[in-house]
Amino acid sequence: MSVQNYVKGGWLTGRGETLALTSAVTGEPLGACSSAGLDFEGVRNYAVKTGGPALRALTFHDRAHILKSLALYLSERKDGLYDLSYHTGATLRDSQIDIDGGIGTLFAYSSKGRREMPDATLMIDGDVEPLSKDGSFAGQHIFTSLEGAAYQINAFNFPCWGMLEKFAAAFLAGAPTIAKPAPQTCYLAEAMVRLIAESGLLPEGALQLICGKPDGLLDFVGSQDVVAFTGSAQTARLVRTKENIVRNATRFIAEQDSLNCSILGRDAAPGAPVFDAFIREIVREMTAKAGQKCTAIRRILVPAETADAVADAVAARLEAVTVGDPRHEAVRMGALVSLDQRASVRASVRDLLEEANLVFGDAHNVEVIGADAEAGAFMSPVLMRVRDPGASRRVHEIEAFGPVSSIIAYNDENEAIALAKRGGGSLAGSVFTNDVDIAKHLVLGAAAYHGRLLAVDESTAKSSTGHGSPLPQLVHGGPGRAGGGEELGGVRGVTHYMQRTAIQGSPSLLSRVTGAYVTGAARRKSPEHLFTKYFEELAVGDSIETAARAITLDDIERFAAFTGDRFYAHMDEEAAKANPFFDGRVAHGYLVLSFAAGLFVEPAPGPVLANYGLDNLRFAKPTNPGDAISVTLTVKRKTPRNADYGEVRWDVSVVNQDGDAVASYDLLTMNALRK
Amino acid sequence: MSVQNYVKGGWLTGRGETLALTSAVTGEPLGACSSAGLDFEGVRNYAVKTGGPALRALTFHDRAHILKSLALYLSERKDGLYDLSYHTGATLRDSQIDIDGGIGTLFAYSSKGRREMPDATLMIDGDVEPLSKDGSFAGQHIFTSLEGAAYQINAFNFPCWGMLEKFAAAFLAGAPTIAKPAPQTCYLAEAMVRLIAESGLLPEGALQLICGKPDGLLDFVGSQDVVAFTGSAQTARLVRTKENIVRNATRFIAEQDSLNCSILGRDAAPGAPVFDAFIREIVREMTAKAGQKCTAIRRILVPAETADAVADAVAARLEAVTVGDPRHEAVRMGALVSLDQRASVRASVRDLLEEANLVFGDAHNVEVIGADAEAGAFMSPVLMRVRDPGASRRVHEIEAFGPVSSIIAYNDENEAIALAKRGGGSLAGSVFTNDVDIAKHLVLGAAAYHGRLLAVDESTAKSSTGHGSPLPQLVHGGPGRAGGGEELGGVRGVTHYMQRTAIQGSPSLLSRVTGAYVTGAARRKSPEHLFTKYFEELAVGDSIETAARAITLDDIERFAAFTGDRFYAHMDEEAAKANPFFDGRVAHGYLVLSFAAGLFVEPAPGPVLANYGLDNLRFAKPTNPGDAISVTLTVKRKTPRNADYGEVRWDVSVVNQDGDAVASYDLLTMNALRK
Repeated sequence: MSVQNYVKGGWLTGRGETLALTSAVTGEPLGACSSAGLDFEGVRNYAVKTGGPALRALTFHDRAHILKSLALYLSERKDGLYDLSYHTGATLRDSQIDIDGGIGTLFAYSSKGRREMPDATLMIDGDVEPLSKDGSFAGQHIFTSLEGAAYQINAFNFPCWGMLEKFAAAFLAGAPTIAKPAPQTCYLAEAMVRLIAESGLLPEGALQLICGKPDGLLDFVGSQDVVAFTGSAQTARLVRTKENIVRNATRFIAEQDSLNCSILGRDAAPGAPVFDAFIREIVREMTAKAGQKCTAIRRILVPAETADAVADAVAARLEAVTVGDPRHEAVRMGALVSLDQRASVRASVRDLLEEANLVFGDAHNVEVIGADAEAGAFMSPVLMRVRDPGASRRVHEIEAFGPVSSIIAYNDENEAIALAKRGGGSLAGSVFTNDVDIAKHLVLGAAAYHGRLLAVDESTAKSSTGHGSPLPQLVHGGPGRAGGGEELGGVRGVTHYMQRTAIQGSPSLLSRVTGAYVTGAARRKSPEHLFTKYFEELAVGDSIETAARAITLDDIERFAAFTGDRFYAHMDEEAAKANPFFDGRVAHGYLVLSFAAGLFVEPAPGPVLANYGLDNLRFAKPTNPGDAISVTLTVKRKTPRNADYGEVRWDVSVVNQDGDAVASYDLLTMNALRK
Repeated sequence: MSVQNYVKGGWLTGRGETLALTSAVTGEPLGACSSAGLDFEGVRNYAVKTGGPALRALTFHDRAHILKSLALYLSERKDGLYDLSYHTGATLRDSQIDIDGGIGTLFAYSSKGRREMPDATLMIDGDVEPLSKDGSFAGQHIFTSLEGAAYQINAFNFPCWGMLEKFAAAFLAGAPTIAKPAPQTCYLAEAMVRLIAESGLLPEGALQLICGKPDGLLDFVGSQDVVAFTGSAQTARLVRTKENIVRNATRFIAEQDSLNCSILGRDAAPGAPVFDAFIREIVREMTAKAGQKCTAIRRILVPAETADAVADAVAARLEAVTVGDPRHEAVRMGALVSLDQRASVRASVRDLLEEANLVFGDAHNVEVIGADAEAGAFMSPVLMRVRDPGASRRVHEIEAFGPVSSIIAYNDENEAIALAKRGGGSLAGSVFTNDVDIAKHLVLGAAAYHGRLLAVDESTAKSSTGHGSPLPQLVHGGPGRAGGGEELGGVRGVTHYMQRTAIQGSPSLLSRVTGAYVTGAARRKSPEHLFTKYFEELAVGDSIETAARAITLDDIERFAAFTGDRFYAHMDEEAAKANPFFDGRVAHGYLVLSFAAGLFVEPAPGPVLANYGLDNLRFAKPTNPGDAISVTLTVKRKTPRNADYGEVRWDVSVVNQDGDAVASYDLLTMNALRK
């Protein structure tokens, strides 16, 4: 195979030096890749001048719909990818994490984009900030798309998932992606991009792919670009300090391999379900993807009194782990990605053994099914136990990026937390305990050093998504040693490719810029009732004002009798007066809401289908008997939901006869489309 | 004066090399400062081992209350600071921006901390993310305090504000501050810290001060520390690439001087109020603090047809700007901070004049009131006009950090946007126009390159807080050339000193860790009605369940007649059936709310003072005649408000006879303290 690059909308073979690609399973040559001779300035220009504008012409919902179509397209055509994936040493299950996991992330981001982002090209961040006493001047933060390219440098272990999880967030943000897979497994990323390109679903320039040695790729990175990197700490340092990246203060997001730990609680005795769940998780993390996961458990923190039992139990399960050709049905763990990688892991194991005893496995010998143990990059799982937990340093510093983990005994929870922190910042950590106090202590004790922390007890032993699985909903990334970056986390991950800007101006200006009604902005009084208008016919700022309705003591009495809400502030003049908020009996808040609806609702059948909710209701002032309320209803935001209807968010302001605000809230209705 | 360092809880004079301090006004020596010989490793250890734990033992509200006490203390004792401030060249008005502005930021952060943050040591970020179909496993992001130190390196221009705005956010976050003022004006920062130390209000170790050359100060920065830097792009690069900062992926927040622009709209003709407001703003930004502001307007973008009028109008107003001893009543603009600074600005003006014509001023001559023009660092305002706007490069690259600005003519809005972007990323920009479409076009066109954008029209010409004023509520910082950092922005600024961690576990675990009730977590059924309990007596997770109440068609008819809400879905069986959401007539949502309250309210006078609001109400399922509803009320969060009462947020779940959720919402009540 000759792996190509996808640049400027076409497939291109690198001219010049090539990198050889070999099968992890057989060691045989697979082909070569090269990005030599590519015009990297042209690649960036194409992204920025063709991809960026095309993407920014779409709304978040448009982009989310494309992600969904793409995910469906790939789901139907993914089968060919598994064949390629075996060459990387991956078992079918490993490939599912990579391929299906990647496609799943597209689905997840599509859903987040439609449900949590507006059908617009900018996103509002936080509340309006009043900046003047007279209400004429205010501030609002917004996110808009950066105008550069998203350079995404991925690791060898998840060529599909790693690429797609970064791409999904950037795409939703409106940033064109330049993806750079690791050479070892770039053929799988290339095959995935071939499917994507064939789909014809993406706007031109939204995705380019560079396979091979990327010398010079980052030379044209500027201040509007983002570099998102997954890989070794060493390479991250080189990228982070690149002259133009430093000069331009380019955003740099790093996910580095990290020395993650899992902690067994003191309450979890051998034989307990949570103890068994812990053992299963350790073995899973050691063997899935042959331990080549940046989130894998490298440090197994266990109570000193349970350490022997843990060592025995893990070793017993590892004994049953079959290693070999990942296509073989009996094989549970495949090969490392390359012979180089195996050599590197073996060297790390040797270093770690300076401070640890071997519990299970042999880094140099392994029985292999259906393959040649030395020609392919096979390796036995290796479990070690640190001799002197207090003094050992290597276990906190050396990452053996393979099926390797070390047991460290602790004496009390504070020591466990201190040991966890010695990793210097980790992507993921976990605690296994049925004691919620122990879990809380460990989780909060270690939180500042972790991007993600999983707590497993009996109730979640089955439903837990696992220590090592980053999820689209949750942030992935950790401080310090883990790189200090953040990806995923739903919409949070999208904002990494956007610029947050504080906008200051009049409420009308803020409304106009953001597309959302801001209190105090100019309203357009509608001659017709707004409930007679279809979704498309409503514009932000359209408004109606109702007549006034007086509220009597009799109303309050009747409402109390009818609803059963006889709270003293409504019923008892003396008790109400003794209350710091009231001067006497007050109307029920729900009475005010209900009467307000009576004032603004248009009863005849029409485009308003349902009141489906209400947000941010605040009662600003009591309503006393004799007060008269009236309502102003203004279209605040509109969000399409499907082909039949959309959500309308109304700003509702209820005032009394003096014009004082009594209640304010957002009313949510579903409105039919005229179509 | 011999400026000291405040380290390890005491005042220390540096031993060894000193830096001379001179008066900006007279050029006379003021004294010296030195941080030579300080034990910087000990400084960090004191921050991390004494300051950090003391701060983290306090809640956000505790810290916010201290900030308020401190702000009040400083307000009463600030007068002595003005005298010192004159030495920096600042006028009284300049000093107010610095001193009062700094104290104001403490007040603002105190208020944000109490109103927008919980009375806890961790902060919840975003919603609970369901992670399993059976509801047994979920995720929640939290922010906890980093365990390192906040190294804050400040610029010479605002020795008080710059220090306090950074300190306020870090303090609220629970991070101990090590402040490093610029040597030129460190004596003012030192005087401020003396007041702070004398107040005795801060926990031990919460603030240290390093004056002088900071060689070695950052050598001990690690992965839990934050470096927040304000100053030149050149120094920022050195800090950003420091070996240990790179190795530890230390958070680095930079605010660099930037080439900010202000744009006059094409609609703004000379003589129009918005034109006049623009001219006033240009002159204010050129002369306030003698133009030594990182947010000052360096590039004046005006329509080609108005450029002459703008030049004339600005020049005419500059003519009236009196320069001299800032203590002198007739003086409007004081001195630059030093003779070196003046020399640097003069050199920049010379470079800029290669591509521009001089419109007003003379960088080498100025008439001065009450001082010696050459001995003091005085300089005339200098206004230039770029000769060839399309070709000029220097005006977008060279920052003359003094009373210097350049006019650039543009032909249409897209050109104005392109010119604005040529600054390569700016802290602040502004547009002056009465045309909301022009404003929108310019603001959204330039947003990706700006941290803050101000739009001024006639309605905000008076209430605007101005182009150059960072506000505690709004983010301060810009991409690219401006450093890529973010400060302030309310709670956003606090999170820079905290770690975001995704926590995964059972709802009960998440409740326990976060201190907020999570749907599905274990509840404690209360034997007494919870409305009989005082604020202190309620615990998160306490819960009551009500009896059921049937809802009849007659109830719906009566509710409609009473409230006037005769919406067709409640009244018309046929019309309701035609609606995609309903099978027939449904109860009003407000009826469900009102009856629910009737079920859960305890009528007798007691600790519940008021229902003051409601959040996140969603109607999940219609309630039809014949359905029976019941309510579960659970304490979700508690937030103290004052000495008399606190806010209780209740999780309210309304279900029907089949146990299906009908409505869910957060109810907000004010509950009395027992005291």
